[in-house]
Amino acid sequence: MATPIGTTRVLRRLLTGGVYSRAERLLERIHPADLGPLLAELTPDEIRTVIDLLFKQRRAAATLRELPHELLPQVMDAVTDQRLADVLARLEIDDLLELAESVPEERREGVLALLPADKLDELHKSELYPEQSAGRVMTTNFVGLDEKMTAQEAIDSIRGAGDASESVLYLYVIDDVGRLRGVVPIRRLVSAPYDRPCADLMIREPISVRPEADQEEVAQLVARYDLLAIPVTDVDDTMLGVITVDDVIDVITEEATEDMYHLAGLSEEDRVFSSASQSVKKRLPWMMLNLATVFLAAWVVGLFEKTLEQLVTLAIFLPVVAGMGGNGGIQTLTVTTRGIALGEIEFSTGLRAVGKELSVGLVIGACVGALAGVIAFLWKGNPYLGGVLFCALVATMMVAGLLGAAVPLALKALRQDPALGSGVIVTALTDAFGFLAFLGIATLLLDRLT
Amino acid sequence: MATPIGTTRVLRRLLTGGVYSRAERLLERIHPADLGPLLAELTPDEIRTVIDLLFKQRRAAATLRELPHELLPQVMDAVTDQRLADVLARLEIDDLLELAESVPEERREGVLALLPADKLDELHKSELYPEQSAGRVMTTNFVGLDEKMTAQEAIDSIRGAGDASESVLYLYVIDDVGRLRGVVPIRRLVSAPYDRPCADLMIREPISVRPEADQEEVAQLVARYDLLAIPVTDVDDTMLGVITVDDVIDVITEEATEDMYHLAGLSEEDRVFSSASQSVKKRLPWMMLNLATVFLAAWVVGLFEKTLEQLVTLAIFLPVVAGMGGNGGIQTLTVTTRGIALGEIEFSTGLRAVGKELSVGLVIGACVGALAGVIAFLWKGNPYLGGVLFCALVATMMVAGLLGAAVPLALKALRQDPALGSGVIVTALTDAFGFLAFLGIATLLLDRLT
Repeated sequence: MATPIGTTRVLRRLLTGGVYSRAERLLERIHPADLGPLLAELTPDEIRTVIDLLFKQRRAAATLRELPHELLPQVMDAVTDQRLADVLARLEIDDLLELAESVPEERREGVLALLPADKLDELHKSELYPEQSAGRVMTTNFVGLDEKMTAQEAIDSIRGAGDASESVLYLYVIDDVGRLRGVVPIRRLVSAPYDRPCADLMIREPISVRPEADQEEVAQLVARYDLLAIPVTDVDDTMLGVITVDDVIDVITEEATEDMYHLAGLSEEDRVFSSASQSVKKRLPWMMLNLATVFLAAWVVGLFEKTLEQLVTLAIFLPVVAGMGGNGGIQTLTVTTRGIALGEIEFSTGLRAVGKELSVGLVIGACVGALAGVIAFLWKGNPYLGGVLFCALVATMMVAGLLGAAVPLALKALRQDPALGSGVIVTALTDAFGFLAFLGIATLLLDRLT
Repeated sequence: MATPIGTTRVLRRLLTGGVYSRAERLLERIHPADLGPLLAELTPDEIRTVIDLLFKQRRAAATLRELPHELLPQVMDAVTDQRLADVLARLEIDDLLELAESVPEERREGVLALLPADKLDELHKSELYPEQSAGRVMTTNFVGLDEKMTAQEAIDSIRGAGDASESVLYLYVIDDVGRLRGVVPIRRLVSAPYDRPCADLMIREPISVRPEADQEEVAQLVARYDLLAIPVTDVDDTMLGVITVDDVIDVITEEATEDMYHLAGLSEEDRVFSSASQSVKKRLPWMMLNLATVFLAAWVVGLFEKTLEQLVTLAIFLPVVAGMGGNGGIQTLTVTTRGIALGEIEFSTGLRAVGKELSVGLVIGACVGALAGVIAFLWKGNPYLGGVLFCALVATMMVAGLLGAAVPLALKALRQDPALGSGVIVTALTDAFGFLAFLGIATLLLDRLT
């Protein structure tokens, strides 16, 4: 459970007093996932000692893996190259890959040179897989079986492997040339008669992914089929590694954050407690793009300066058109991008989605347009003004529905991220179109309005 | 894997020809999660036959559990009350709870009356837990052990239970009065020496949750500690049930959707392929609320009608102020609500987050304000206009940062959903404030502007 507040104080006192055996026992009782806040409060010297103690317990690697990213520089700074390499060497390849990137640029080469040759080799091989691909999140640590083994022999072989197989959930039946033949869930192994051969227990043609597959696709498969791990195989079915459900949970969380962030024009490194300067650096380019798009809307209004001069009241209703259209666009956009992310929508059925959103826009536009029109009429006493607002809102809401559904689908068809930038594009275009519709119709009916 | 397009055609031909044995074999090869699209294309008669065949294979319950919600009415309509009750009776309690709610109102009582008395009893008990609580997603199906059992005895007891224990990942050591003493991961059981007692293998004081706990909190624990299942216990540690990682993945996905949807003012039932009328019904109340808030902004502009009459050019820059402020507010809001959802932020550190966003708003406001000011000056030839726009943007972006961080934190402190409605509130207030700042400063400097 969460670390009690007093723990840091106790640990600090034990470290200062040099009572390392008791500090060690205290650390033993804390889950690696809970050590982050504790390390954050220690001095570099104390961090070094704690990492040494954790290393003795073979828990330093697990701790490093669980640390929040913003704490890594502080912890890595406190540890020598040699110790850091020792800790990294104990990580599974997917974690090593991630953490190697967090080692400060100037130390990275030195630290990696201290890794065992085979680990370094594996690391270089993993780095060849594309970003966010299955190859980068898989571990190469799995238990392979021969199909002729009995259930009891398989259990004995896991026993023999001892500690290393803490992560065993499925066992993989591999043939002589390393190809995946089937999967035996450990629960099935345990509940089978002793002498049943693995060939009878295994699931044949198991669901697997290629190392180049996008991690989001992997997550969808695991979620859809309620898997605890999914094997990664090469084109010739050679078993390369395994992606476990805990990594899939991280992927799902990460991808959801990414989608939300991209809709708002944010980049993933921009978190609640990133430094303000970091946040500014990440957001500024988006806001500059946004500035360009709002000036597009401003330019549209500028086209109608003469109309506005004759009837300044029209300016009052610009926020109504922009606000309703913007919100309608974001609603459609959210439904569509989420549908894409969850695999509920494929491009083949995209046209149906666009059609639906268009009709939803029409109905909602008519409803809010009628109400807004009546309010405008009552406020300004001109029925034509109400009519113009009604027409403009219907048209704007339809365009919002159209763009909100079509923009992410088009981005997906172009193999781009459907969420990235769509928020900015959709709201800008909806605003510009809304002003065009409202002020355009008003210009045509200017005689009746003034 | 995904169902090939031809499968429906083949199945249909087999059903029409009455070749049920081959239809059965075909169905056997399809994963329950892939049966949805197939059922969607069949006639009621065909659905009834398929459900009967699946029932014989004991797979009808698994299929029903995996069906997308929009398909349930169609499938349930095709099946008799008795068969539906037979299928429901085979579900675990969390799935039964969910599906019982999908039975059409007019049939529900009749169908539930046909359930075995103990299932019905369990269902009524589960319904007492709050919505979205641990008690509603847990299953009561778990394997309990005595701590004196050896590893091999425990394995034998799982073997004895046979098929029912397909979901066994952890075994729970329970004392005489039903209290949870510890957890034995199955992989640890398998890799232990035969004669090691469970008391030595079990993790003591395991992480557990109360049945009233929010499902989001459960998901956070499972993700944080990389668990495959989490026990649900009562205040006196009595073991009530287990929540498995596949359900947690569903919760994580559901909660992410909920957050995105709430930010945009959408309700969860509004999906890509919900009917248009369903979507309209769900979105209209939000759009009505939105209409009220945009009229607030319109009212603020109305306050300055006199200023606008003297300088209609100002109207052109209203979309700039509103667009930048709205986007800045949404960015801050997204970072803050996501931080809350992932447990990165607690209310105690909320003030720091607000302070940071305020300073980010200041810097970004100054940058985009300077650029926008220069553009306005070059476009309209009046340096004062540029100055007014600069000041207005700095003020608006700061307010956007303040509100974007403070509104969700305040909602959380009031024990409300931090995302629900914050999008509408923040953009409306930012717009209104932006217009007030821009037109207010312009009014003060009107001599210089005209």
